[in-house]
Amino acid sequence: MIEDAAKKTIKILDQNGIVLNKNERNHIEVVDFGLNQLEKQGLQIIVYENNDRYCAKELVLFSNQTCPEHSHPNVGEEEGKMETFRCRAGKVWLYLEGESSERIQAKIPKGSEDYYTVFHEIELNPGDQFTIPPDTLHWFQAGEEGAIISEFSSTSRDEFDIFTDPSIQRV
Amino acid sequence: MIEDAAKKTIKILDQNGIVLNKNERNHIEVVDFGLNQLEKQGLQIIVYENNDRYCAKELVLFSNQTCPEHSHPNVGEEEGKMETFRCRAGKVWLYLEGESSERIQAKIPKGSEDYYTVFHEIELNPGDQFTIPPDTLHWFQAGEEGAIISEFSSTSRDEFDIFTDPSIQRV
Ligand SMILES: [Zn+2]
Ligand SMILES: [Zn+2]
Repeated sequence: MIEDAAKKTIKILDQNGIVLNKNERNHIEVVDFGLNQLEKQGLQIIVYENNDRYCAKELVLFSNQTCPEHSHPNVGEEEGKMETFRCRAGKVWLYLEGESSERIQAKIPKGSEDYYTVFHEIELNPGDQFTIPPDTLHWFQAGEEGAIISEFSSTSRDEFDIFTDPSIQRV
Repeated sequence: MIEDAAKKTIKILDQNGIVLNKNERNHIEVVDFGLNQLEKQGLQIIVYENNDRYCAKELVLFSNQTCPEHSHPNVGEEEGKMETFRCRAGKVWLYLEGESSERIQAKIPKGSEDYYTVFHEIELNPGDQFTIPPDTLHWFQAGEEGAIISEFSSTSRDEFDIFTDPSIQRV
């Protein structure tokens, strides 16, 4: 299952002209957040670079796949992770704190309704991007056709992420 | 000339499946470094994001175009800009401080030989990347077919860049 998802990820990137090197192909991060329903709630990640100053990743979402609601809190003196999502292909609906949109386009994963609490919608199509401030709840879902997102950010420290769903284990 | 270069840049990105939004299309940075020989020494830049924590750009180089030698010095207490070059298309030869390579593949721009002083060669093909440490001299040249580089970095502060060629005006 994880291997199938990794292969599918490589294929999607390939079809969109995004080239991975051999090491990256062998280290696709397939994340099901411990929920065991990857196709509904999950995310595929290629980490290009993560150092003590900045981070860059490619995120792949399958059709209607959702990355669950979370935030990147401040840690000690350091501000939480700040991330810019740039849509490269497909469509993404991003939700964050702020005034709720009247009607949202994403479908909240069935059985997890309690763990989606922010509904300010931003739609990202190829060439669109949005920067999520630190310490701000957010979640996102791909459209029918899936999505590729380039994530540019400050240093990634996944172990500090806070998920709304208490059953989620990220690291 | 500048407008032609901007159009050519958009076309190259388009042919490689990299989508720009309207605002980006209207703000391609065409940099000739004040040398007035863009095709030989120059660089085309799309700035996706530059905030006080990180920066992300797309760099486009035409056939055999060279970005002149420079460094990103430390500024006060802050370490100089650190940058990761990821080759997306074409071929790039990157040169930096360190042991000189026996024979380099790039052709040093005629008349500017004095201003190229570091010759440790790194060849980048699609999917390859390299991180340039802060405060380190470097320059780079595209192969015959040109190149697209995704640059992930700490904050960009071009006004502090130091070029080996004293006649260069970056900002
Ligand atoms: Zn996040
Ligand atoms: Zn540089």
